[in-house]
Amino acid sequence: MSQQLKEFFERRDRFARLLGFRIVDMGEGYATVEAEVSEEHLNAADVLHGGFLFSLADYAFAVASNSRNDLSLAINANILFHKGISGGTVTAVAREIQEGKRIAGYSVEIRDGGGTLLATFTGTVYRKGIPLV
Amino acid sequence: MSQQLKEFFERRDRFARLLGFRIVDMGEGYATVEAEVSEEHLNAADVLHGGFLFSLADYAFAVASNSRNDLSLAINANILFHKGISGGTVTAVAREIQEGKRIAGYSVEIRDGGGTLLATFTGTVYRKGIPLV
Amino acid sequence: MSQQLKEFFERRDRFARLLGFRIVDMGEGYATVEAEVSEEHLNAADVLHGGFLFSLADYAFAVASNSRNDLSLAINANILFHKGISGGTVTAVAREIQEGKRIAGYSVEIRDGGGTLLATFTGTVYRKGIPLV
Amino acid sequence: MSQQLKEFFERRDRFARLLGFRIVDMGEGYATVEAEVSEEHLNAADVLHGGFLFSLADYAFAVASNSRNDLSLAINANILFHKGISGGTVTAVAREIQEGKRIAGYSVEIRDGGGTLLATFTGTVYRKGIPLV
Repeated sequence: MSQQLKEFFERRDRFARLLGFRIVDMGEGYATVEAEVSEEHLNAADVLHGGFLFSLADYAFAVASNSRNDLSLAINANILFHKGISGGTVTAVAREIQEGKRIAGYSVEIRDGGGTLLATFTGTVYRKGIPLV
Repeated sequence: MSQQLKEFFERRDRFARLLGFRIVDMGEGYATVEAEVSEEHLNAADVLHGGFLFSLADYAFAVASNSRNDLSLAINANILFHKGISGGTVTAVAREIQEGKRIAGYSVEIRDGGGTLLATFTGTVYRKGIPLV
Repeated sequence: MSQQLKEFFERRDRFARLLGFRIVDMGEGYATVEAEVSEEHLNAADVLHGGFLFSLADYAFAVASNSRNDLSLAINANILFHKGISGGTVTAVAREIQEGKRIAGYSVEIRDGGGTLLATFTGTVYRKGIPLV
Repeated sequence: MSQQLKEFFERRDRFARLLGFRIVDMGEGYATVEAEVSEEHLNAADVLHGGFLFSLADYAFAVASNSRNDLSLAINANILFHKGISGGTVTAVAREIQEGKRIAGYSVEIRDGGGTLLATFTGTVYRKGIPLV
């Protein structure tokens, strides 16, 4: 199932493709995604845009929360920004902190290539009870 | 000052340019930005990616919080997702809810072309005491 | 219905009673609650405890979100603290920002007696489809 | 220093005393606090009030963030509610996720006596550069 869902996300999530997000690992309730930071992802202060970091975390969150093939929609998300970077690889690791039939909670940590924590994300989803694939 | 800062953001924020974000209005403590949703912004469920909505809100937040020409960095942000869309124009309006010398708070509402609320965002910044332009 | 629900909350919410929270106004999708700040609500820095402010906002949120007599449980909440106080009256006004069958969103503003904004709260609930009274 | 700060919090935080919060452990960047849930902490649905859970997490956050004797004020906090309880012991463990000179971030997990996760909290503080004791 994971392989099928991975291909589904890779083929269908066009925003993830636009930003170069790759699924590195995924399984029931977790996901790791990564991306390369390039010039076009920087903000006016020459730092990686907070929207890019959020989007990467949100993608890991989406992959992890849909990993049981039950369509799960984000209700809310919260992000703490710890450190700015201007290039290199960024990795987001999502894990399930609460598994429920209708509501589930996830946390995501984003780190740079050296393992430094860049941002901390938490979010909840509502499960629709509909398969994705 | 607003015109100078507007040009600074338009020239320098490369991620906003990549996603087609436009500053429609800005002044001390507020900003309105908008964008057109296209195919490449959709997620695997054929809905506008939450990361795009967050990024648009975050851009309005950045423009509003830096509008006094005092470099302001995002500390945290929270977003509630209310409704999904798959196309059209989206507009984010940021306003200041707390003005402080070091810490300031903002709220952002994102609406579709018909005025329906799509997402609600709140965030805080830390002011560095350094001019942007 | 509002009067019946108001009495239900006043009789049954023991934590609200412990902290002296009063329902001033309530109706479909909104609520206003208030409380007097006393010595026993202060933290170690002689300022009203953030937990008291959150609890007041959370109570307004609970009353507003349950105002249609459909049991609604908090999924998440976010609070921005703007200003500390050490006494006087505090008022929390909750309003609905998204009405949904299963998921609904609310924002709450807390002000002191002079109308100064002390904290901004947002939260979402999950509706159980069960009446309260 | 930890012992001195522990006594300072125990003597001075009157709201923590009102709610029966106890500091079980604290050190640089972390704290564990606990409390007994009693009848007067329940909400209208006969479940421990979200404000009580938040307050306990907020207290652990305050103790952890002030543990270096540098007055640290909460800027914002976010909480996900996972599971409701109606009695027993609740424990909140706060740990530092980002240490900064001015801004620092913390996460707090609240569990019941059996170790089940009840709520997940994240928050940031602004350091004033003033000693507490």
